[in-house]
Amino acid sequence: MSAMNIEKYTKNYFMPPTVDMSWALQEHPTKAPTWCSVDLRDGNQALVIPMSLDEKIEFYKMLVKVGFKEIEVGFPAASETEYAFLRTLIEKELIPDDVTIQVLTQAREHIIKKTFEALDGVNNAIVHVYNSTSVPQREQVFKKSKADIKKIAQNGALMLKDLTEQAGKNYRFEYSPESFTGTEVDYACEVCNAVLDIWQPTAQRKAIINLPSTVQMSMPHVYAAQIAYMSQNLINRDNVILSLHPHNDRGTGVADSEMGLLAGADRIEGTLFGNGERTGNADIVTIAMNMAALGVDPKLNFSNMNEIVDLYQRVTRMHVYERQPYSGSLVFAAFSGSHQDAIAKGMKWREEKKPQYWTVPYLLIDPQDIGRQYDGDVIRINSQSGKGGVAYVMEQKYGLDMPNKMREDFGYCVKNVSDHQHKELMPDEIYKIFHDTYVNIETPLRLIDFNLDKTADGMRKGHLHLAINNKEKQIPAYGNGRLDAVNNALQKELNIKYNNLVYSEHAMEIGSTSRAMAYIGITDEKDNTYWGAGMDTDIITASVLALISAINKKLNNTL
Amino acid sequence: MSAMNIEKYTKNYFMPPTVDMSWALQEHPTKAPTWCSVDLRDGNQALVIPMSLDEKIEFYKMLVKVGFKEIEVGFPAASETEYAFLRTLIEKELIPDDVTIQVLTQAREHIIKKTFEALDGVNNAIVHVYNSTSVPQREQVFKKSKADIKKIAQNGALMLKDLTEQAGKNYRFEYSPESFTGTEVDYACEVCNAVLDIWQPTAQRKAIINLPSTVQMSMPHVYAAQIAYMSQNLINRDNVILSLHPHNDRGTGVADSEMGLLAGADRIEGTLFGNGERTGNADIVTIAMNMAALGVDPKLNFSNMNEIVDLYQRVTRMHVYERQPYSGSLVFAAFSGSHQDAIAKGMKWREEKKPQYWTVPYLLIDPQDIGRQYDGDVIRINSQSGKGGVAYVMEQKYGLDMPNKMREDFGYCVKNVSDHQHKELMPDEIYKIFHDTYVNIETPLRLIDFNLDKTADGMRKGHLHLAINNKEKQIPAYGNGRLDAVNNALQKELNIKYNNLVYSEHAMEIGSTSRAMAYIGITDEKDNTYWGAGMDTDIITASVLALISAINKKLNNTL
Repeated sequence: MSAMNIEKYTKNYFMPPTVDMSWALQEHPTKAPTWCSVDLRDGNQALVIPMSLDEKIEFYKMLVKVGFKEIEVGFPAASETEYAFLRTLIEKELIPDDVTIQVLTQAREHIIKKTFEALDGVNNAIVHVYNSTSVPQREQVFKKSKADIKKIAQNGALMLKDLTEQAGKNYRFEYSPESFTGTEVDYACEVCNAVLDIWQPTAQRKAIINLPSTVQMSMPHVYAAQIAYMSQNLINRDNVILSLHPHNDRGTGVADSEMGLLAGADRIEGTLFGNGERTGNADIVTIAMNMAALGVDPKLNFSNMNEIVDLYQRVTRMHVYERQPYSGSLVFAAFSGSHQDAIAKGMKWREEKKPQYWTVPYLLIDPQDIGRQYDGDVIRINSQSGKGGVAYVMEQKYGLDMPNKMREDFGYCVKNVSDHQHKELMPDEIYKIFHDTYVNIETPLRLIDFNLDKTADGMRKGHLHLAINNKEKQIPAYGNGRLDAVNNALQKELNIKYNNLVYSEHAMEIGSTSRAMAYIGITDEKDNTYWGAGMDTDIITASVLALISAINKKLNNTL
Repeated sequence: MSAMNIEKYTKNYFMPPTVDMSWALQEHPTKAPTWCSVDLRDGNQALVIPMSLDEKIEFYKMLVKVGFKEIEVGFPAASETEYAFLRTLIEKELIPDDVTIQVLTQAREHIIKKTFEALDGVNNAIVHVYNSTSVPQREQVFKKSKADIKKIAQNGALMLKDLTEQAGKNYRFEYSPESFTGTEVDYACEVCNAVLDIWQPTAQRKAIINLPSTVQMSMPHVYAAQIAYMSQNLINRDNVILSLHPHNDRGTGVADSEMGLLAGADRIEGTLFGNGERTGNADIVTIAMNMAALGVDPKLNFSNMNEIVDLYQRVTRMHVYERQPYSGSLVFAAFSGSHQDAIAKGMKWREEKKPQYWTVPYLLIDPQDIGRQYDGDVIRINSQSGKGGVAYVMEQKYGLDMPNKMREDFGYCVKNVSDHQHKELMPDEIYKIFHDTYVNIETPLRLIDFNLDKTADGMRKGHLHLAINNKEKQIPAYGNGRLDAVNNALQKELNIKYNNLVYSEHAMEIGSTSRAMAYIGITDEKDNTYWGAGMDTDIITASVLALISAINKKLNNTL
């Protein structure tokens, strides 16, 4: 029962000549790298329907707003849309002074010249050339030797340098040994150094060496060891910005990025939500938010995640996966009772103790920090949920603060409805269940009025006006308070007994200006507890209604 | 422009007392761990609509088929559906001898007893108890000291042991310090050792210690260092199965699992496609396929991925993300021209050289090994695509083998249609474009017949019967072959000139029993090349039709 022809597979990556894992002694990156968005290039070319010019502009503006300072805009010499897009950015002055546009180009004279034509009018640009260096690409696609492939890189670097000088420009350069992860690491280093030797970067005009995991082939620590080797063996290293461009074939694009940074990289090329060819690129949202969650400022702003997700989904026609870290619609959702309970307690603890740091159980970050709501996003109710979650939703959304034991009763009640209807319940549906189950229940007993005056000895005495099965009746009432008087009158009139009367009440602060809510639980001789609630502008009336509701529930149950 | 209140966040995990990263000297796991599916527990409790009994049974059968030997089926004492589900598995004899059912239980007497009642009739079971040990859970939820929390674990372990002995059962035990990643590592180890001290596992009846990243809080190498510490400091280690249960809050569940295995773990609890609470659990499909892609047999069978995805999507009502490694619908898709070209060349090289190992560029594994097709899944055509991909699709699907230069012409043609219509093109649409653009074009020239006899000197002589703008005409023809004779006749009759006639033809092997396809390119004095194709049961007729098609294209272009 093997998954497939295992014999057909072997490792296609290469360990570096010296393996240095000392980066692993750092726990996490402690400062933001330079971020370069490749959404408009890698991301776009992976779409079933690529973006139109207008869609690209909209996406680009959002990238600027998020805080990207380097944005790859595509291959302007190879595509009319990409050419027009770049010209629009320049002509409509959509490039802020602190944002650098990056363009890809092939290292052929007329293509570089056309690229420069597309760039005319920008102050800063990164011109990115690449060629494929991996064993399979050399053998199968280019059918060339190591020396030939290195020569391609050198010729490209030289041509780019000469044409840039001829054009009197000061563009920065980037070189990628494409398919780096399938390349012998020392050979990749040799090729990059040959390019650097031509470019002679300086502190004022650094060169970018970008190492893509075009296909992710190894575990992340192996990639990090490759990066460490490159970082330690590139010439003129101080004037090189070492960039990573991780993909996600093995599902470890985020780990590759984070470990690559520890191993010496300075810059990350990636996309929002990991869009990109096949399994996609490294998800910059996740990498940046992982930093933030450890207290490291990522220098990107995802405080309005919903807006970013909406725009992305609209212009790319892709879908952000429900469980995509930080951005997915379900990533803060807790359906399970024990999780809901812990979150509710953690939130309460936080409110009371006001601790410096976020430590609420089950929530890595505060959803509100990226514009998500507790309501609806966090505590969600279905048949897996329990009293804690249900009570939390009712408290947050409707200001209902039920007694503890009533929460349990209501929890089972909601769970049953959800199980039976086989669906998630929204807060308004849960509130309706609450209302129909407990509040101001009027059969068989319906309160019409009551009138209880204070006696000289401080007792209450008067009449309770009821309808019992729609027949009106006045009954005398006497007790040490109004609720007690009503309680005595009802027990006597109906000839029933109960004890352990649990009572609580509060003003309704949400959705009502001056109403009160009262809760009453009565336990009968068989140890069954019945809960009722009363809602009224008058607090005493609310408690009488709660008691009558509880008695009605008992009567209906015993009938 | 910070993403959020960074000051609110800090690390909430703990480094182990001794940090050992020597696991990083291994490149990847070299044998399959024990896999435990928690799809029916963690996975189910994270669903907006949890699975019904029938859906769970269907999912369970698929898990058995995939090859899982340990399957957690839920919390039978806490839920009627889960109780009924377990009873059904047992009563309908759905548990193969080599599969062990795992159940979760709280360590309370009546709950353990009800759990045993649910298990009645199984031979093998793992009974899994847990309690939460992290700092936030201790402080905020349980409001208990370290000693109290340890006592909870010990009491639970003892009760489970005693009740199991009383019941005369031989169930295996699992203990999880829930929220392990928020727990001081030495304290977690102390609690686990206290449990092991009670259970006294043996070689015949090992205990499972399961370390969940309930919330993923650190980089994967930090988690691995925690696992290494636990592995090195658990008592009776030989009789302990060290299990991981990684979640995915930081997007590194796969890396946590892989590195945890290198650091000493023996077992992985996870789910298919990473379903599970919030950001989900570690994706067992990805972890297993990552092993396979390195030539390590994962002992799970995903050779029919589409069927698994379909069933999963149906019963969970979740969606497998398009870019989810190995299983997503887009993970083998190449839209970009250069990728398509390299893949097509790599596939051809593979066919010719028959190498031992899979090394096709841009494809980590052979899609066919998991039941995916090259057609439709790999080379997909839109406005980002180029000649290589388009030609590859036409060759694979329709057996069309165009000359190289014609591929370029057709590539631009298809790209324009896709760009203009703003959509992906399916192979049948591309074939229609090919057919409408090149094959048997009949205006203004339409072939009616030709008759060319061999002369004594081996030349061909006779007549060509044409309709020109629907007017029939017989013209004399002479040349050193039939195509040459037709060519001469047409150039003379129409008074046109062209050269560089490129010609190729082949039998149609796909979709036709005995047809031939001919391709002809003519280049006029302005250096424009026009392509035509002819399809006919007779190869000579096909080439004449190709020539006439090419001439028609030139005439239509110059008109």
